[in-house]
Amino acid sequence: MTRPSDTKTRIQAVARELFLEQGVQNTSLKQISDRLGITKPALYYHFESREDLVRSIIQPLIDDLERFVAEREPGDGRRLLEDYFDLVWRHREVIMMVLHAPATLVELDLMDRMWAWRKRLTTLLLGPTPSNAARIHTTVALGGMSDCVVEHADLPFDEVKAAAVEAALTVLAI
Amino acid sequence: MTRPSDTKTRIQAVARELFLEQGVQNTSLKQISDRLGITKPALYYHFESREDLVRSIIQPLIDDLERFVAEREPGDGRRLLEDYFDLVWRHREVIMMVLHAPATLVELDLMDRMWAWRKRLTTLLLGPTPSNAARIHTTVALGGMSDCVVEHADLPFDEVKAAAVEAALTVLAI
Repeated sequence: MTRPSDTKTRIQAVARELFLEQGVQNTSLKQISDRLGITKPALYYHFESREDLVRSIIQPLIDDLERFVAEREPGDGRRLLEDYFDLVWRHREVIMMVLHAPATLVELDLMDRMWAWRKRLTTLLLGPTPSNAARIHTTVALGGMSDCVVEHADLPFDEVKAAAVEAALTVLAI
Repeated sequence: MTRPSDTKTRIQAVARELFLEQGVQNTSLKQISDRLGITKPALYYHFESREDLVRSIIQPLIDDLERFVAEREPGDGRRLLEDYFDLVWRHREVIMMVLHAPATLVELDLMDRMWAWRKRLTTLLLGPTPSNAARIHTTVALGGMSDCVVEHADLPFDEVKAAAVEAALTVLAI
């Protein structure tokens, strides 16, 4: 017989799968219970709502990040970046799930388009057969620049542009 | 009397406002028509559904990016990055709207948390009073690293980590 905690973990695993495939908004609790072969009440026993289930999947990432930023002290930058990378890598499925979550992005196929644009820009910058390291550097350059327009939308355009382009060029010159 | 095209533009402006405030999924066509002081049928005359309205708002960004990657030739990297920056800056409200779109993020207050984490990481790396340029560089470093775990999830962890951390450190050393 399956222990309740196993069922809970299986529900989360199947939900994560479906959320990644088709987006959170497009996934019903019924689809999740169908794929698992359990009844909807059995699912409700563990999760009151889709939001409750989504939250339970994202919560470990939130907890880890909260702990990380709370416990760290200024000091070794490399060590901080390495550990931060480990953390986001460990949670990459949840990060992808969150990025796939918006129905809008799923409907407009916007994520796939975005990766296609990125790929094309990388080719423009590096030629048709870049090394993996160069591709990763380009992701840092382009992804980081996009984040600037959101995070620093309150600063003057010229200032953000100059610093963002400088950072991107420096990365591409590695 | 208001021309139909003006009404259409006003609907889009108010929709963008509400989408940014509370997320796409949490905004109904009724809320949009209420804020505009028009009837719901008047809104339906211009947009068949919320999805239709959302698409009309995002489409200019899609078109601009499609054109950009289609027309550019390899060559001057700085120029490419500068023009790419101009493009994403011009569309930053739509980018923010898309990022705010997922009900999940809105419910869990995840975007605000994310900026708070970023800010704390920036303080850890740069001290309490960084210059704007240093803050922008840090956004490129951290934002770019996060993108790597999604875009290069198919590559070996060690390889992605080494190249991403190297890129981030290089940016922070500017």
